Amino acid sequence: MKILALESSALAASAALWADGRCVGLYLQNCGLTHSETLLPMAENLMKGTGVPLGDVDLIAVARGPGSFTGVRIGVATAKGLSWGLDKPCCGVSTLEAMAWQGAHWEGKLLCCCMDARRGQVYNALFRAEGAGLRRLSEDRAIALGELLPELTEAPVLLGDGAELTAKAMTEAGLPFLPAPEPLRIQSAWGVALAAANAPQEAWGEPEPVYLRLSQAERERLARLEKEQHHLLDRDKGE
Amino acid sequence: MKILALESSALAASAALWADGRCVGLYLQNCGLTHSETLLPMAENLMKGTGVPLGDVDLIAVARGPGSFTGVRIGVATAKGLSWGLDKPCCGVSTLEAMAWQGAHWEGKLLCCCMDARRGQVYNALFRAEGAGLRRLSEDRAIALGELLPELTEAPVLLGDGAELTAKAMTEAGLPFLPAPEPLRIQSAWGVALAAANAPQEAWGEPEPVYLRLSQAERERLARLEKEQHHLLDRDKGE
Repeated sequence: MKILALESSALAASAALWADGRCVGLYLQNCGLTHSETLLPMAENLMKGTGVPLGDVDLIAVARGPGSFTGVRIGVATAKGLSWGLDKPCCGVSTLEAMAWQGAHWEGKLLCCCMDARRGQVYNALFRAEGAGLRRLSEDRAIALGELLPELTEAPVLLGDGAELTAKAMTEAGLPFLPAPEPLRIQSAWGVALAAANAPQEAWGEPEPVYLRLSQAERERLARLEKEQHHLLDRDKGE
Repeated sequence: MKILALESSALAASAALWADGRCVGLYLQNCGLTHSETLLPMAENLMKGTGVPLGDVDLIAVARGPGSFTGVRIGVATAKGLSWGLDKPCCGVSTLEAMAWQGAHWEGKLLCCCMDARRGQVYNALFRAEGAGLRRLSEDRAIALGELLPELTEAPVLLGDGAELTAKAMTEAGLPFLPAPEPLRIQSAWGVALAAANAPQEAWGEPEPVYLRLSQAERERLARLEKEQHHLLDRDKGE
């Protein structure tokens, strides 16, 4: 089976071509450019470079979040477009699970997948690497670092673009951890391909973005509505 | 410092852009296509994709071998051309040392770097991962697997495109080893960039290919010359 995988959930963006258990190509960049300008050309160059016709791809895989609102939407939209255009199925996978697959060879280790979610939080999920596979220990969640640290009762492998943030907090707290080298640490389409290759066929279908949190615009709207509500209630009381 | 690194010493080919301790971009493919057709377009697309002007690169790095004769020559020739054209220095690094850098985070472990050298041999070098750096334990060499195995008295991390070959021989001999995940196992320009970033400036200069063995054409010529010599000697004796 040939999988074309896309990852654009945070600062890094990547495209991978995976065929019958092997990574045939991985194009990855982590330069802060807009994914709307980089993701599709990168995938096109990958297919041209490896000489595999786009029509030979059996499955489109994409990181469906959590992640940056814009990044996740670009990835999911591109994958849906490709899937529709090629008339091939699509599989959305958790960004955090995709990261965990990049550490699945650390047999027996606790894998702590982290993305910087701003406002003192990380998007996080915990896994155990078991028999070249994964056992999920927590749901995908937005969690404060102060809440996450007490859960890390053994030295975890830190994966994802929030690994440095988490490493800093763990060092300050005197907690041990294992660093992952850059090509395994950064979220990558290689992990997305692995997650999709290991997903049951029932998981295929139109991927929906998963944000775990409201967007800034939605948070502001909610705050405004609440304020208006209070204002009306206060006026009510005053009358 | 910005390093543009190239790797084309075997079946895989890759280009990496490394800036101030970080991997800004890595384009890697392992599809068996001719490197003379894929390496330069890949490097061009990498630079375009990351938006870094070629003139901003401070150092060209390349895997100078051991490896396939054609692959090593293409890599070294491309790097020399780029270096001359840009008027920027060039640094050739050992293909095997570049691989070892990809495993430098395995603190304390024995790193066994292997490339399939055909004819029952591997190109090999042994390193110890120490303090996020490397200690070299052997020279780069062409060695029969039967000679290498007795040296592996502790479970090594197997790196390089000869890792599977070596793993098979170790399994048959009942010896333990640690497998490396694909993006760390395949030789990659990321490792070349790391090796160049850690090389002393005295190592910069025009890189020369290192083959460790004679090419097939040279071996055949040598065999022919020896045969002719014997023929002449025999005739001499006969006269």
